[in-house]
Amino acid sequence: MTTGTVAVAPVARAAEGRRADLARLSLNTATTKHLTLPEAAAAAAAAGLSAIGVWRDRVQEVGAEQAARVVADHGLRVSSLCRGGFLTTPDPDGAAAALEDNRLAIREAATLGTRELIMVVGGLPACPAPGAAARPYPSADAGAPDPARDLVATRQRVADRVAELAPYAAEHGVRLVLEPLHPMFAADRAVVSTLGQALDLAAPFAPEVVGVVVDTYHVWWDPDLQRQVARAGAEGRIASYQVCDWVLPLAAEPLNSRGHVGDGYVDVATITGWVRDAGYAGDVEVEIFNEAIWAQAPERTLATMAERHLRHVLPHL
Amino acid sequence: MTTGTVAVAPVARAAEGRRADLARLSLNTATTKHLTLPEAAAAAAAAGLSAIGVWRDRVQEVGAEQAARVVADHGLRVSSLCRGGFLTTPDPDGAAAALEDNRLAIREAATLGTRELIMVVGGLPACPAPGAAARPYPSADAGAPDPARDLVATRQRVADRVAELAPYAAEHGVRLVLEPLHPMFAADRAVVSTLGQALDLAAPFAPEVVGVVVDTYHVWWDPDLQRQVARAGAEGRIASYQVCDWVLPLAAEPLNSRGHVGDGYVDVATITGWVRDAGYAGDVEVEIFNEAIWAQAPERTLATMAERHLRHVLPHL
Repeated sequence: MTTGTVAVAPVARAAEGRRADLARLSLNTATTKHLTLPEAAAAAAAAGLSAIGVWRDRVQEVGAEQAARVVADHGLRVSSLCRGGFLTTPDPDGAAAALEDNRLAIREAATLGTRELIMVVGGLPACPAPGAAARPYPSADAGAPDPARDLVATRQRVADRVAELAPYAAEHGVRLVLEPLHPMFAADRAVVSTLGQALDLAAPFAPEVVGVVVDTYHVWWDPDLQRQVARAGAEGRIASYQVCDWVLPLAAEPLNSRGHVGDGYVDVATITGWVRDAGYAGDVEVEIFNEAIWAQAPERTLATMAERHLRHVLPHL
Repeated sequence: MTTGTVAVAPVARAAEGRRADLARLSLNTATTKHLTLPEAAAAAAAAGLSAIGVWRDRVQEVGAEQAARVVADHGLRVSSLCRGGFLTTPDPDGAAAALEDNRLAIREAATLGTRELIMVVGGLPACPAPGAAARPYPSADAGAPDPARDLVATRQRVADRVAELAPYAAEHGVRLVLEPLHPMFAADRAVVSTLGQALDLAAPFAPEVVGVVVDTYHVWWDPDLQRQVARAGAEGRIASYQVCDWVLPLAAEPLNSRGHVGDGYVDVATITGWVRDAGYAGDVEVEIFNEAIWAQAPERTLATMAERHLRHVLPHL
């Protein structure tokens, strides 16, 4: 921060500098789970952010058109819509319903004015969906193949259903953004586990139609990460960069183990540098699932987000 | 099972058939955590097994020479010694101590008559070692590199220290067996997270000196698994095949979430077929960390192991 040589408006200039520093920081509404969309938008704007990543439940509470207005009224843009996906069931009726829901999500994204629809593709047929009661799934007979645990076939269904959705997404100017989830979630949430695998799935499609998200929590451990981030950039497929930290011990619900950048073990500086070097110039979304953070005052969460962004992310962006 | 045309000894023949069916099944002593080595060896022999994989704590209780005698007296072979590793500290004194402990483990393996020393390489410097109290680790200053979270450098230290140990292992006829651990453990236990990465680390060394273990729990999710198992086989580096299942929900201590084959979501049939196709002809170790299984009578654990082996593994082996 340089000291001005004229006496006017240093406070205003400082505020403007801060706004510039936060220009690419986006609040994902999952981080302030208990806020409605209007509340989250107000909190993001008050903290000096320019973007918000929205979850469909909070969008649907007010309707996509009203959601778009609320976001615009706060001077924000929508960095992404979370989430489509859960495309892996072998059951034809279930698959048809999943595709229909994804078409709705595509229309919602278009209405919200974001290109980027984040896709969590879904887990194994044998595994209870998140939130469902655990149920024992019978093992296959001795020697027989077990379709409910067949990862290869499940992944092929993802490819097939992305192909079914891609033309509809393209028509609506929306990109299907494949999210590799941490392998901890391969059974119950996403059979796409690495950035390289997501890029292989995206390869048959134009980069404007199928992209990928780099979420530090999910991919930080990957020994192939630097190469795959560079590849994603070269292919023009990085649709979103999401940051949070890997905190231990894991929460009882492992999904909620995510922490503020700087509170865990992820080398966010290095990964951010790789994303920068890959040419990514979009928003940096903070998406944290964490009971303790959800229990805090939202202003405190936003303040911590901003502080960590300035300290750990911005210098490398 | 065919019916004999002569009246003699059908029971003995059945027992012999069962022993043949279990000929490659090995009890890893972690599965019967509360048994001493003599007790575990007796339980394995009584269940009709021919091999046992031993942990160093149970070996050291009786001493390596006595342990070798106990195992031999029960007609068993040692399929592997668990474990060396934890080589990642940047602290010179800590590194020297780790190397010295690994040299001891190499001598113990040689005394036990197993070639295979399983290596869990260790986690990030920033992360408390398993069992240690959680401690906050200071974040690096803004913009500065953070060596304690630097995965790339930590992985390089693993490579360097494997190179230091390899000649000593070779002299003793022992193989350093790199174990990729599930990425869930990348921060605190092993910065080697995929089979491909383990093979890359092993590449500079002869396959008799540095190998890899395929543990279904750790690698089942990997989209590149089939290719890397084939590569491991072609290179002659598959030193051990360990089986257990991915059970949800995760235990409070995620390490202890492993379950009996057939109780979770791993497609053990398919992975076993890949391991077979890669030419692996060694033992199949069952290594389960699970509080509920530890609380059971060991005979029941061994009986379940054998039943699952016959049902889910042997048909594909």
